[in-house]
Amino acid sequence: MADTPLPTLHSYWRSSAAYRVRLALAIKRLPYRQVAWHMAKGEHQQPAYRQIAPFGLVPMLEIDGLRLQQSLAIIEYLDARHPEPALLPDDPAQRAQARALAQLVACEMHPLNNLRTLNRLRGQFGADDAQVQDWYRHWCEEGFRAFEAALGASHGDYALGAAPSLVECCLVPQVYNARRYEVDLTPFARVRAIVQACESLPAFDAARPENQPDAPRPAQAA
Amino acid sequence: MADTPLPTLHSYWRSSAAYRVRLALAIKRLPYRQVAWHMAKGEHQQPAYRQIAPFGLVPMLEIDGLRLQQSLAIIEYLDARHPEPALLPDDPAQRAQARALAQLVACEMHPLNNLRTLNRLRGQFGADDAQVQDWYRHWCEEGFRAFEAALGASHGDYALGAAPSLVECCLVPQVYNARRYEVDLTPFARVRAIVQACESLPAFDAARPENQPDAPRPAQAA
Repeated sequence: MADTPLPTLHSYWRSSAAYRVRLALAIKRLPYRQVAWHMAKGEHQQPAYRQIAPFGLVPMLEIDGLRLQQSLAIIEYLDARHPEPALLPDDPAQRAQARALAQLVACEMHPLNNLRTLNRLRGQFGADDAQVQDWYRHWCEEGFRAFEAALGASHGDYALGAAPSLVECCLVPQVYNARRYEVDLTPFARVRAIVQACESLPAFDAARPENQPDAPRPAQAA
Repeated sequence: MADTPLPTLHSYWRSSAAYRVRLALAIKRLPYRQVAWHMAKGEHQQPAYRQIAPFGLVPMLEIDGLRLQQSLAIIEYLDARHPEPALLPDDPAQRAQARALAQLVACEMHPLNNLRTLNRLRGQFGADDAQVQDWYRHWCEEGFRAFEAALGASHGDYALGAAPSLVECCLVPQVYNARRYEVDLTPFARVRAIVQACESLPAFDAARPENQPDAPRPAQAA
């Protein structure tokens, strides 16, 4: 039998969207290799990358002879091809709820807070660090407030119950980033509890930005 | 047999995300009623709406006893429950491509260009109309450029081939908005051709913002 090549994740250690896909791969225990593109240096915008990933964004996953872009689309593909453990419920109503919570992060929070958006604020409006942080916090707090309101009286350690799902694949990277920007998470009890539950799981440790091959060594960390 | 209540779309005529869901409902020929929340007046942020839609965003769809939020999650639900005509392909690889193109609009373009984001630019940075338009155009052109590059040599009238899909449900509202902000679409030949093909379809006409019950009459249009 011919060897199946390992999936290749085109990534950057600090990209939230790449972090989501690393979490999905780790939860499903799928081995993969990584190719790093240094986003802060703009490597993902260069022709060498755009040729294989026309959106010019990380992550991109090479798997099964395909080149998949957009983190949520990639995770849904992984869940269809490698159903266990499931990242989405089977029932359409529950799937809709899972996707809505994931999209709250992916469509309402992260796009407003990622590197290229913040850089544009600096470039177009001359925003300084304090203004960037204010912008960041505003969207982050709006999003987490909506997240808490939507979860309401739901129970279980995780957003959908007893196991992490697509929701945690999005939430944990968002919280990781929120901490970098010193957003006060005190008002968001459910968010904090869910993230704390995730932090005890080996898959979530493996996917952490600091544990990626392209992360700076501690002495170099900025 | 008891009557099944009509689905209720909580909407605003000019919301791109609501427009996506109207397109999906129209393509699937699902009858529904609408409740309008005037976004420009902030009605969607009030407790009366947040109580039923905790994200505080339109659209929200009441259907099958559920309250569904986030346009892409809603459309996927509709596609699961009412499979014909399909808005997503069956094959996981093709589904991933469809979702990636939809998410290019929903995660990379629209969040940076919707009303609340532009209002925040005005409020936090004192952005004037010209600066807002410059910001809008930047993200819009980046997105459409990526869209064209990703479609590459694909054929057919629509993004995925012979029929409109989830991709067109996202693309058409984005182009509608881009025209409002006077983005020059000349460089984006595939985008223009796809939208033109859609414009001849009755479902796309029914879902147009101007044809919604809460749209201002022509004499009042601003």
